[in-house]
Parts: sequence; structure tokens; C-alpha cells
Amino acid sequence: MVWNTNLRWRLPVTCLLLEVALVVLFCIFVRYDPDADAHWMDEKLAGNISSDLENEFYYRYPSFQDVHVMIFVGFGFLMTFLQRYGYSGVGFNFLLAAFGIQWALLLQGWLHCYREGYILIGVENLINADFCVGSVCVAFGALLGKVSPIQLLIMTLFQVTLFSGNEFILLSLLEVKDAGGSMTIHTFGAYFGLTVSWILYRPNLHHSKQPQSPVYHSDLFAMIGTLFLWIYWPSFNSAVSSHGDAQHRAAINTYCSLAACVLTSVALSSALHKKGKLDMVHIQNATLAGGVAVGTAAEMMLMPYGSLIVGFSSGIISTLGFVYLKPFLESRLRIQDTCGIHNLHGIPGIIGGITGAVTAAFANSAVYGEEGLIQAFGLRSKLDSSMQANLQAAGLFISLAMALVGGIIVGLILKLPFWGQAPDQSCFDDAVYWEVPEHERTALRPEHTTLRPPEP
Amino acid sequence: MVWNTNLRWRLPVTCLLLEVALVVLFCIFVRYDPDADAHWMDEKLAGNISSDLENEFYYRYPSFQDVHVMIFVGFGFLMTFLQRYGYSGVGFNFLLAAFGIQWALLLQGWLHCYREGYILIGVENLINADFCVGSVCVAFGALLGKVSPIQLLIMTLFQVTLFSGNEFILLSLLEVKDAGGSMTIHTFGAYFGLTVSWILYRPNLHHSKQPQSPVYHSDLFAMIGTLFLWIYWPSFNSAVSSHGDAQHRAAINTYCSLAACVLTSVALSSALHKKGKLDMVHIQNATLAGGVAVGTAAEMMLMPYGSLIVGFSSGIISTLGFVYLKPFLESRLRIQDTCGIHNLHGIPGIIGGITGAVTAAFANSAVYGEEGLIQAFGLRSKLDSSMQANLQAAGLFISLAMALVGGIIVGLILKLPFWGQAPDQSCFDDAVYWEVPEHERTALRPEHTTLRPPEP
Amino acid sequence: MVWNTNLRWRLPVTCLLLEVALVVLFCIFVRYDPDADAHWMDEKLAGNISSDLENEFYYRYPSFQDVHVMIFVGFGFLMTFLQRYGYSGVGFNFLLAAFGIQWALLLQGWLHCYREGYILIGVENLINADFCVGSVCVAFGALLGKVSPIQLLIMTLFQVTLFSGNEFILLSLLEVKDAGGSMTIHTFGAYFGLTVSWILYRPNLHHSKQPQSPVYHSDLFAMIGTLFLWIYWPSFNSAVSSHGDAQHRAAINTYCSLAACVLTSVALSSALHKKGKLDMVHIQNATLAGGVAVGTAAEMMLMPYGSLIVGFSSGIISTLGFVYLKPFLESRLRIQDTCGIHNLHGIPGIIGGITGAVTAAFANSAVYGEEGLIQAFGLRSKLDSSMQANLQAAGLFISLAMALVGGIIVGLILKLPFWGQAPDQSCFDDAVYWEVPEHERTALRPEHTTLRPPEP
Repeated sequence: MVWNTNLRWRLPVTCLLLEVALVVLFCIFVRYDPDADAHWMDEKLAGNISSDLENEFYYRYPSFQDVHVMIFVGFGFLMTFLQRYGYSGVGFNFLLAAFGIQWALLLQGWLHCYREGYILIGVENLINADFCVGSVCVAFGALLGKVSPIQLLIMTLFQVTLFSGNEFILLSLLEVKDAGGSMTIHTFGAYFGLTVSWILYRPNLHHSKQPQSPVYHSDLFAMIGTLFLWIYWPSFNSAVSSHGDAQHRAAINTYCSLAACVLTSVALSSALHKKGKLDMVHIQNATLAGGVAVGTAAEMMLMPYGSLIVGFSSGIISTLGFVYLKPFLESRLRIQDTCGIHNLHGIPGIIGGITGAVTAAFANSAVYGEEGLIQAFGLRSKLDSSMQANLQAAGLFISLAMALVGGIIVGLILKLPFWGQAPDQSCFDDAVYWEVPEHERTALRPEHTTLRPPEP
Repeated sequence: MVWNTNLRWRLPVTCLLLEVALVVLFCIFVRYDPDADAHWMDEKLAGNISSDLENEFYYRYPSFQDVHVMIFVGFGFLMTFLQRYGYSGVGFNFLLAAFGIQWALLLQGWLHCYREGYILIGVENLINADFCVGSVCVAFGALLGKVSPIQLLIMTLFQVTLFSGNEFILLSLLEVKDAGGSMTIHTFGAYFGLTVSWILYRPNLHHSKQPQSPVYHSDLFAMIGTLFLWIYWPSFNSAVSSHGDAQHRAAINTYCSLAACVLTSVALSSALHKKGKLDMVHIQNATLAGGVAVGTAAEMMLMPYGSLIVGFSSGIISTLGFVYLKPFLESRLRIQDTCGIHNLHGIPGIIGGITGAVTAAFANSAVYGEEGLIQAFGLRSKLDSSMQANLQAAGLFISLAMALVGGIIVGLILKLPFWGQAPDQSCFDDAVYWEVPEHERTALRPEHTTLRPPEP
Repeated sequence: MVWNTNLRWRLPVTCLLLEVALVVLFCIFVRYDPDADAHWMDEKLAGNISSDLENEFYYRYPSFQDVHVMIFVGFGFLMTFLQRYGYSGVGFNFLLAAFGIQWALLLQGWLHCYREGYILIGVENLINADFCVGSVCVAFGALLGKVSPIQLLIMTLFQVTLFSGNEFILLSLLEVKDAGGSMTIHTFGAYFGLTVSWILYRPNLHHSKQPQSPVYHSDLFAMIGTLFLWIYWPSFNSAVSSHGDAQHRAAINTYCSLAACVLTSVALSSALHKKGKLDMVHIQNATLAGGVAVGTAAEMMLMPYGSLIVGFSSGIISTLGFVYLKPFLESRLRIQDTCGIHNLHGIPGIIGGITGAVTAAFANSAVYGEEGLIQAFGLRSKLDSSMQANLQAAGLFISLAMALVGGIIVGLILKLPFWGQAPDQSCFDDAVYWEVPEHERTALRPEHTTLRPPEP
């Protein structure tokens, strides 16, 4: 196989074609939703609106900006931990997310906000587009270092489509609750990415372990990503919840779950090291599992202690996954998972789906109030709540199935030899796709070969 | 010319004199606006206010904090890309912005919020002060590495004054619309800074190319700046728009424009490199051009596809500017533009001004509604809208003229030899004005001379 | 003394025991406050609530997220300035804060929100928990590099308890005003931490000066912390103020004070260096003193010029403290203050307490309005306002006393030899508690001994 990594024509043409298509489709289909349309003033004068504050903008905009930070700074910097792949980590994430949000506005718009021939967009659409792209960022984590930017754009194109279909089935057809996206974003994104990584398996990659490890400062850059994800996760899980108590509760539950998760991640990280030392990989990743695992149930009456239990468990399971499951996946199942997304998004996402189903099963009007129960689930009786629990569980399985089937198809497409992928020895190296400062290109290589003995 | 870069007396005296003057002027002139004054409670009891939520604070504060992040973290870290000028990039930006916002509160206050002998300030004044300083940060980008902190303070003193005058002419006299400041902030700031840089031309600077290039990690620090600017730009363009739909729409348009801009910047960056590699300079800068270019029209009924087109074009033009125009400006016009502000703020600012004028020309009551049109422009007829378009265009020319004339005058003042400027061979080096860790002062120099061959 | 720094069993057991205890206590005691409870819908239908916007969530959530960034990114990255202690700086801060917020929710809940056997939590509790942990982060600054993570967890356990007691005395018993926590957070946290550091004095630490200094990029990482603290401080000081004008005013005053503080910090930093060079330590720390010093009075009618004067003074005093007081504390009083918290939180906190008392003394109905005065202080007459001033001063002394007594007790507990503390020669070195990239462990040491001459 001849590796041609010169993207001079392929990348520009891909980007420009996609963007031109987006412009045309936006021109035909996308308009402002009434809260963002200048006719708002006429509505106001007509007395249909009593105060500008009722504009959805003021309910959602602060959360939107927090989610936006998570997608671009959070996921972006989380992926800068490799010693020579920081440009790509943050840069390709930027590229795929910028494309993905536009494509998601269209697809989610057609499925959820299509009125008389037009998609009407407002701030909630922006949040949902960011959410959708979040699942692509998750999948990117498994592929980090091994794919070209063209492959990422193609993957985004398909994954956003599959995501929107899956989301439509869950939220609209089954009326599943999944405010923080444990199922639609994390479970789907993780197993999709892992399946693609399985298809794209590179058997000789482990010969060059060095570039897959961090350097001191790259680990600090990654902590920027971790902390912004951790801090803003309460906004992520509450951003599209119902106004008032649901949004409020989702933020509290996520705050609690994440705090508990940090303690158990640290505990396990130390306990699993022979000298009791902490591992930055666990601090950067497992501490976030609590946010994933509480996603579905965050807006429900999970209770603060319920959130702590969710965070407690997911911190433990996620750290165990990094230590035991990740090597197993690579050696036995031939799944190379660069960032360990299986441990941060995969298993915690499943925990989240199950937690949501269980919490829904116990929903009743004593806990929620009569109106609260209807508002939260559209339920009126005990019987309904077990039905809701079944639907929640079904949603989890559908997400997994969509991820596996979709991942195989998209993986096979990405395996085609003309997307500019790099040979094994150039994986995890920015110099393939980026102009890197000259003296560092020469200075880096000796370090790899002389200073660092191969790990056992 | 004797270069005395010891600022021991000059910098402290400048800072303290300016700050004492500010204290005195604030004492005489500045008070709280009614929304921030304790008499608010009396108003509320008197029935003039029905809810605390009507306080302007709740409409604007989240956007204010986002803008604040852009000015101090966004612009600050964007300027840390040079290998040995990170302290100055982020530190001098911090200094000039902290001074500038105080001075801007006064000047903008006198011109816009002067009531019965007092300037009454509230959260909107804080945003506008940040905006004003944004234009100084833009100008600083052209001068980065070549001026002393005293020169920057002097420049801020004058530029804030000129900015406020120009803003007053545009917004108050001509009633031009410019919510995101394409004209008042970006065009004015960029051409002001470029003119100053032209006056301060250093013909021998190109002999020492090395320190003007980044190192690997300095480029990642700069990406922190880029991403926070990119993420929060929807807040920047919507922060002072009218309540309700205008604010909402400005955020959506900016989100769309920026997303499109990323794809075309990446496309051009790759297409213009002989091996198709991406250049961090373009990713750090050109991806933001969409935010600048949509500034004026963001709150108008530009339509989402209109925003995509604006972002599409400005990403292309900005990247072309970095590749072809920047070297031309330096070699032929003797304008040294360290950060390439001409490509990020100058040309996109002009595009923004023109887009605003064109969008205003097409404003009518079918698109805006009767009341929406009055709210947006104060217009009642088709005739008015072409008048508005002409005023918008006039505003653009006035901003350019103010920038050029003001830049020449301020440039000549800054050329005076006693501001502590550094000799050519010490440009782009923190060690001139900062205490730098000892072992790095010695360790760095050999790297410059031995490891990095001079570029062709 | 045998130094056993292997935490393999001790750290996991400590973390897990603490977290299990928290889960049990949350299960027994913690429920949602009405604004976060699903019964909200019933309230709304019953007409007790007219709009979801009245939910406390919308008044406080944006400020909460800003404060959250300050605690985890702000304090975390501020402590990454040491060349080889970045993992610990940001990681241990993450650990202690995640534990502390859960423990604070309980303690502050029992003291302030205990209703019929339950603690009812909402967004304001989250903010107050973050505040409480802020005082632990402050104390951590004095101990940075010299304590184990177990010691930090033990300290957090006790300090949060003492903080809550002190806060209860001040805010509930004495009805002292301290919205931004100049007394309860900064003064208490700083003198508590300094007292603990005094008890834990390590006389031989100064022999190994090298690791206590930064490297170039570690200083830039620290600036991330500084800037996010600086930017979001207006939210910190206004987050729990009364709705409407008080919150609005607190943000304005803090903005003004911080801006002034930057100029005087820069002035003094340059004036106190023999070549007039700036010192990153001052830029990273003293520039924040204005936020601390205006904490108590920020929500009062301090006036913008009053804020400038507070910022002006505290920038000067803080920088002087770094230059003259810090070495004096270490050599004469045997207090080793790694981050210089005495200069950033200690003295400015006292200034803040005094400023609050003085401002309260001058409160009257001419300035505040009749209702405003009652709202702000619960006062009705001139006589009351001098009483309030005395109570404010008493609050400051009580905070100091609690800090000193508490610090001695906790210091003695932390001096016990089984917490896994490191020997002097391993202080300020991540490799004791963290898995550090192999080639950097070997590459770093020679640099210390050969490249860097010992400082005079």
C-alpha cells in the first residue's frame, strides 16, 4: 500500500464541497425561530409576550456557552496529551466540530423543527447541534493519532446522520428521557468510535509506543480540557431540560455525581499502582465518568445521594477499565482506543442508561407531585412508570445496535485507501499533516530513540 | 540612538499617574446607574419595577463575562505564540486592557451616559468598555514584540479617546448600527495599529527571524486564546443588542458564520502549502475572521445562510491575506504586522461594514415586521433603508479615516526616543522587560543560533 | 524519621471512607430545595409562582459556573507555576475541592438550610460550598509542595468544619455582611494556612531552592489560573448578593477594583526591581488583591471611585508584601508560604474587612434610600450603622482568632508522622506521588544541578 499523506487537493476540495452544500441547504431550509425573528416585536405589541425575558434565549444561553466551551476547549484540549499530537488533537477536533454543528442543525432540524418547509432555529438548536457533535468528539478519541482529517470529516458526515436518526427514534418515537445524553451521546458515540477503530485496526502500531505517551507539559494542557469539561458538565446535563426545577435539579445532581467521582477515581488510581502513585490518565479521564453516568437521570428525582452513588461507582469502574480493560481490548479484541473512551464514555454511558431506566421505574406522584410527574415523563400512573423504564432500556439497546452497525459501515468506508491516512510509523505525529517548527522536528526524534527506553 | 530599556522609574510613574488621575475623575464623575443603585428598592416598592429580573444585570451579565474572557484570556493567549514573548503577550495585554477599561468607562460615559453632571454606569458600560479595549488589543497585535509597556499605555490613552470619538460619531450622530463592532472595533483597531506600525517601522528586524517563530508548546498556548475567542464570539456580537430577538439572532448568526469560516480556513491553509500541510497561524487566526465579518450585520435579519456565506468568504480571504498580503505589506509597504491583524481584523472588518450596509439596504417590513423594523433601525419605509445603507457605508469610511489620521499622530508620539523601546536585536524577547528564569535565559540562546537554520 | 511516601493503601482508604460517609449522610439528610424539586409544577399550577424565571436558578446559575471555574481552573492552574509540581498543583487542588464541596454542602446545610430534619439544597448552596472550598484552596497555597494528598484531605475535613462554624457566627449570629468573603474566605483561609505552615515548618527546605522556581512555560500555565480568577471575580463577589441592584453593584465594584489593582501591581513590580523588570510572581498574584480587598464592601454603596481606591492600595501593599514581607516571614517567623498567600489573601482580606466596616459606618438612608438601607443591612437609623460597623470589625477579629487557633490544632494533627509526607529533598517534586513520564524523570535532574546555578 502506498501511503500518500499529501492532502493538498483532497482536504480543500472536501471542505469546500461540504461547506458549499451546507450553504445551499441552509439557503433552502433554515430560518429563524420566532424567538429569534424580528417579528417578535409585533408579537410583543400584540400582547402575546409580556416580557423580553420570556425569550428562550435567557433560559438557555448561559448553558449553551458552557456546552460550547466543553466541545471546543474541553474535548479539544483533553486530546492534547500526546507529546507530538497536540496540534492535531485540538485542531482536528475544531475542524470536525465546526463542520458537524452545521450538518447537525440541518438533520436535527428536519427531524424535530421542520415547519411548513422550513427549519426554524433558535438557541436550543445550537445546544443540540453541539450535543450531536459531542458524540463525534467522543468517537474521535478512539481514533486519535491514526486517521486523517479527511477521514474525520467523512466520519462526521455519517455519524451526525446516524446520531440524528438514533436520537429521533429514542426521543420522538419512544419518548425516552435522555437530557444529558448518556445513551444518545456517550454510549452511541463511544461504541460507534470503538467499532470504527476495530475496523481500522493497525496490528503494527504497538511497535512504536513512544509517541503514544505524554510529556510533562502535554499532560498539563490536557488538564485544561478535563477541568473545563468537569466544571461545565452541570450545564451539559441541564441545558435542554424543562425550564425551572428540572434544569435546576439536573445541575445539582451532576455537580454531586462529579464530585464523588473524583474521590473514587483518585482512590483506585493509587490503589492500582504498585507504589501507590497517581496516574494522570485516570485523573484526566475517570474523574469525568460521573458526569456521563448521571446524564440520563440528572433531571429526574434521583436525589443528591443517588447522584453520589452514581459518581462513586462510575469513578471506580472507569479507573478499573483504564487499568484492566483497555489493554485487554487492544490485545484480544484488536480495538485500539487511544484516549480510552470505552472507560470514560462507553461503560459510564451504559451505567447512565440503566440508572435512567431504574429511576424512571420508581417515579410516582408522591415523589414528583401530580403535575411534576406529567411534566417530567408525561406519566399519570404507576403502570406507566414501568412502561417508561422499559422504553428507557430499549433506548439503550437501540443506541448500542445503531453504534455497532453504523460503526462497521462507516469503518469500512474509512478503510478505503485514498483518504490520506498515515503509515503506522507516522501515527501520533503532527508533522504528517501540520507545518511544525523546524528545530523541533529535528530535536524531537533523537529523544524518542535514545532517552526513552521501551516500556516493558 | 542609545537604547535605555530600564523602566524602573518611567513605568511606575506612568502607571501611578494614570491611576491617580482615574481615581480623581471617577470621584468627580462616576456614580451607579439606577439598576445598580440601592435606591432600586424604593423604585420597586413604588411599583415602578415589578420584578428584580427586569434589572439589566440579568439580560447582559452572562454575555459580559464572556466578553471579559475574550479580552483578557482570548486576546492575551492568542499573543503567546512567539517562543520567547509569552510573558509580554499575555502580561502587556493584561496591563493595557486594565487601564483601558477604566479610561473607556469615563470617555464613553461622558459621550453616552452623562446625566446631570454624573456618568451613571451599569453592566452595559462594562461591556462597552471591554469592547473599546478590544480595539486596542487588536492594534497591539500589529506591534507585538516591538514596543515597550509604556508605549502601550500611551497608545491606549490615545486610542481609547479616538475610539470613543469615532464611536460617538457613528452610533450617536449617524445612528449607524454596529452591534459587534466590525467597524468601530475591528476596522478602526486594525488600521490604527497598522498605521502606528508603519510609523514605527524597523528596517533591520528581518535579520533576526528566529524569535518571531513559535515553538511547539507556544502554539498550543495560543490555541487557548483562539478557542475562547471563537467560542464566546456569539456573546461578543450579541452583548449590547436589543433585548429579546435581536440578541438571540446575533448569537445564532455569529455561531453560523464562525463554523463556516473554520472549514474554508482549513481548506485554504492546506491548498496553499506545497505539501498540503496545515499552518497553525491560519488555524489560530483565520478561523476567527467569520466573527469579525458578521459583527455589524449579526443582529440584523441576515438569515443563517447569509451568515454562512459571510463566514465562508472571510475564511478564504483571511487565509489568502496571511499567505500573500502579509509578506507584501512588510516588504513593499514597510508595515510589520506581527500577528497579522490586517488579515484577521482589517479586511474582515471592512467586509463586515459592507455586509452591514447591504443587509440594511434590503431591510423592509416584510422581513422585520412593522414594529421590528422600527426597533431594529428606527426606519419606517423603503426609502429609509437605502438611507440607512448609505450611513452604514459612511460609518465605515469615517472609521478608516479616523484610524489612519489617528494612527499617524499616535505613531509619531510613540516614535519619541524616551519610552524605553528595545533595540532590534532584543525585539520579541521577554528578557528585556521581565525577570526570566535564569537557566532558560542561558539555555535558550544557543538553540536560536545552532539548532534552527535561518529560514530562506 | 522514616519517610514512607507510598500511599497505596492509605490514600485509597481515606478517599473511600470519606466518600462512603458522605453518601450515608447525604442519604439521611440531603433533599432538593423547592426550586429544584419536581413539586415546583404543583406550586406553579396553584398560582404561587407566575413564571419559571422566578426560579432561583436563573438568578444565580451563571455566577455559579463562573465561581466553579475559579475554584477548579483558577486556583488549580495558579498553582502550576512550579517547574515540577504542576500535576500536584492542579491535581491535588481538584481532589481537595471535590471532597470539600460535598462536606461543605452538609455542614453549611445543617447550619443554614436545615428544615424539618432535612437539608434542602439549591444553586445557592452550590455556590456557598464552592466559596467554602475557596478558603481551603487559599490555605493549600501556603503548603504547596510540602504536604501529601492525605494531609490535604484531612486538612479539608477540618478546615471546612471550622469555616462553617466561623461563617455561622459571622453571618447568622452577628449578622455581619461579607458577600465576597474578604473575612470568611480570604482572611480565615490565609491565616489558617499560614498557621498550619508555621507548625509544619521545614528548616532545611531552603537548601533546595531550584525546584521552587518556575520554568518559562509553567509561568504561562499559572497565568491561565490568574486570568480566570481575575475575570470571574466580579461573579465571585456578587454571586450570593441580594437580587437586583446589590448583585449588579457588586460586579461593578469588583471590576473597578481589579482594574486599578493591575496598574499599581505593575508599577510596584517594576519599581522594586533594580533594572525595572517585571516579575511574573507579582503579575500572577498581586493583580488579584483588588478582588479580595473589595469582597466585603462590593455589594455596598462603595462608589466606583471607592473601589478604585481599594484596588489601588491593595495592589501596592500586596506587591510590597511579596518583595519584603515574604522573605521576612520565612526567615524570622519560620512561616514558609509557597504561593505568597499572605500577600494575596491575608493582608488584602484584612483590608477588605476594614473597608467593609468603614463603608457600613457611613451607610445612611440618603445614600441607600429608606428601603435600600433595610434591604442592605436591616438598618433603620444612623445609630444602627455604627453598630453594624462594630459588628463588621468584630467579625474580622473572630475570623483571625478562629484561623489561628484552628490552624494550630490542625497543624499539630498534620504533623503526625503517618500521613505520607515527603522528605525535604523531595518537596516540590511530582515524582513522589505521581507517575511521571520516564524520560523526563531522568532528563530533569541534571538540569537542576548543572544548568541552574544556585541563586544568591
